[in-house]
Amino acid sequence: MITFKEAFQKVLDHPLDLGIEIVSLMDSLNRILAEDIFADRDFPPFDRATKDGIAIQYSTLINNVHIFTIEGEAAAGVVQQVLNDKNNCLEVMTGAVVPENCDTVIMYEHISIENGIATLNKEVTKGQNIHYQGSDEKLGALLLSKGTKITPAEIGVMATVGKAMVKVKGNPKVCTIATGNELVAVNETPKPHQIRKSNMLTIEAALLNSKIEASSLHLLDEKELIKNELEKALTENDVLLLSGGVSKGKFDFIPEVMESLGVEKVFHRVAQRPGKPFWFGIYPKLKTVIFSFPGNPVSTFANYHLYFLPWLHTSWGILIDKSYIKLFVAFTITQPLTRFIQVSTIVKDGIIWAVPVNENGSGDLTSLTKADGFICLEPREDIYEVGESVPFIKTR
Amino acid sequence: MITFKEAFQKVLDHPLDLGIEIVSLMDSLNRILAEDIFADRDFPPFDRATKDGIAIQYSTLINNVHIFTIEGEAAAGVVQQVLNDKNNCLEVMTGAVVPENCDTVIMYEHISIENGIATLNKEVTKGQNIHYQGSDEKLGALLLSKGTKITPAEIGVMATVGKAMVKVKGNPKVCTIATGNELVAVNETPKPHQIRKSNMLTIEAALLNSKIEASSLHLLDEKELIKNELEKALTENDVLLLSGGVSKGKFDFIPEVMESLGVEKVFHRVAQRPGKPFWFGIYPKLKTVIFSFPGNPVSTFANYHLYFLPWLHTSWGILIDKSYIKLFVAFTITQPLTRFIQVSTIVKDGIIWAVPVNENGSGDLTSLTKADGFICLEPREDIYEVGESVPFIKTR
Repeated sequence: MITFKEAFQKVLDHPLDLGIEIVSLMDSLNRILAEDIFADRDFPPFDRATKDGIAIQYSTLINNVHIFTIEGEAAAGVVQQVLNDKNNCLEVMTGAVVPENCDTVIMYEHISIENGIATLNKEVTKGQNIHYQGSDEKLGALLLSKGTKITPAEIGVMATVGKAMVKVKGNPKVCTIATGNELVAVNETPKPHQIRKSNMLTIEAALLNSKIEASSLHLLDEKELIKNELEKALTENDVLLLSGGVSKGKFDFIPEVMESLGVEKVFHRVAQRPGKPFWFGIYPKLKTVIFSFPGNPVSTFANYHLYFLPWLHTSWGILIDKSYIKLFVAFTITQPLTRFIQVSTIVKDGIIWAVPVNENGSGDLTSLTKADGFICLEPREDIYEVGESVPFIKTR
Repeated sequence: MITFKEAFQKVLDHPLDLGIEIVSLMDSLNRILAEDIFADRDFPPFDRATKDGIAIQYSTLINNVHIFTIEGEAAAGVVQQVLNDKNNCLEVMTGAVVPENCDTVIMYEHISIENGIATLNKEVTKGQNIHYQGSDEKLGALLLSKGTKITPAEIGVMATVGKAMVKVKGNPKVCTIATGNELVAVNETPKPHQIRKSNMLTIEAALLNSKIEASSLHLLDEKELIKNELEKALTENDVLLLSGGVSKGKFDFIPEVMESLGVEKVFHRVAQRPGKPFWFGIYPKLKTVIFSFPGNPVSTFANYHLYFLPWLHTSWGILIDKSYIKLFVAFTITQPLTRFIQVSTIVKDGIIWAVPVNENGSGDLTSLTKADGFICLEPREDIYEVGESVPFIKTR
């Protein structure tokens, strides 16, 4: 049995090259950018009026002139207008190109207009109300880096530079595999000794939150059947996520069958709770990566977040989320196992507190709906004190 | 001009009844639950073995017996087995029903088996390694409440109780409307005085994160055209989200056209920066709600999060997110406007800090990609000190 830290490192040591996909701008939402995005022109691309009003040449004010004949208008979306007589002005609209021979914009609120003549009512600063060409970003500037998660703000930037199609990090082809004769489908009525499949639906939903649409299998506890199905799944997928069949039971065929198919065990069993019987292997022939989680719902869910997501982020070449949280209650962890304890979070005055969730062991599915994540507590002699900050694995 | 607080309250005073949709379990992910979910049986539904090993009757141990003949086995997914001779044992697998006449499970690690006889090697506690029927939840218990956001954990619970179809809060039919002659499509090359549409794509992406697929329109600055298109949009949608056309410009026809169509202005202009020219109205005939945001990208994005999302949550009957964050730098806000300042967040030792983003005014689209949200600072005489906690509106 290896430690959590060792197991974690071994999983990260087996990333996959997931390649690149090209998707439409809107489909790139929540994916990982796989190209650098540069400004295709200055931002803004011209000296842009930021207020509705008039545009003037500031130098005319030196002679204490504050009356301007309106020569014409400059609307947004038309070519740059020209002020012919520098003693006049042009009406100008937000978003318009500041007219040639003008360098200052005065908003309607600060002038009065009568008979085509604008009179200034307020002090004017040279250059006011102009968003200067290139003042946000210059042509060629790096706007977004490879590896960025694409949120609505990034969609806006990519729209502006004309990225109708976007290169994003490829997704692995994932198959989720439930095992066990006791499982029936969600729309079936279980017999007294049966339960409905739920674990792998939780995982499929979690994958959807990473924009991965997984396929799914259910394997009964028959060795030959498991062998055939797994052989096919190993060939057709990049990643297998299994739940159950890795304990000491007579029908826990997964490790044995995997090895008979040429899958190499990287490790089996980790000194952690929940999730101890976790089995991890690789299929060298096709580079398939296999995460075989223990079958209890809390164990599966914990191991998905503890191992699979960091593996996915490493394969994408992006940083693994690392966050810390303050303990709302004290803990004593004296056993040899690294403990992952379900907590809900309370944010108060900008401080995030971890409050343990009332949980009835790793079979307690409903406890997951009360938790926001797991805290990670290594065994140690000293008590974990209230207010101490500890690693936090967010699950919600 | 009204204050931010007044404007916020007026928006919340106009929620819509968005009804209920019935969707498949997996499609309910990230939607809002519109029904209470109850346990359809006990959780677990039977006394369930939590370890692979043997099941015995504890009372036999009283006579210091620690050798048991294996009578048979109880696998997961088969009907409850019976231990015929209480001095014997049955092999039992994780997930199996604990056999009749047994009350204790001993894991393989703590026994040795030879010639069909199991010998105990370790102290045994009565009732160990059994996950008792109903110990997590009783038949009929409320597992999930109406109004819960459905995450992967809730998917698992609903799968377990057989919810193949789920009632969720209905989504509004939303149309996003960009205005202005200066805008061209993402896949077009803008002329020097034009820019590409980006604002409303940002908003469409943000809506997708709430699982709302919006339609979209682009209105040119022609009053009759705007009138015809808006009339149609008011009829076909529950919500219109507009960007631009609400300032003081000569082509800012939106307020005027809205009112000519029978839309009632609730307010126009809010004492806030960014987002001051925000116009909000309702169309009493069909109850359409209209959010007309100023056209600058930071203004549109801020107002979407400040007003539309809380409106949506209120319409769904769920709580509005309220969070606070600590200031990493001091601020002085003396002007009359409520300020929303873009910040990135740093989490250190369980404390969330707000670091202001370098921003070049509300036209600075790229600043949005550097920010995690807005802090809300009301004007006041006292300085906002480092470490003070202030309201935070998350945008990422």
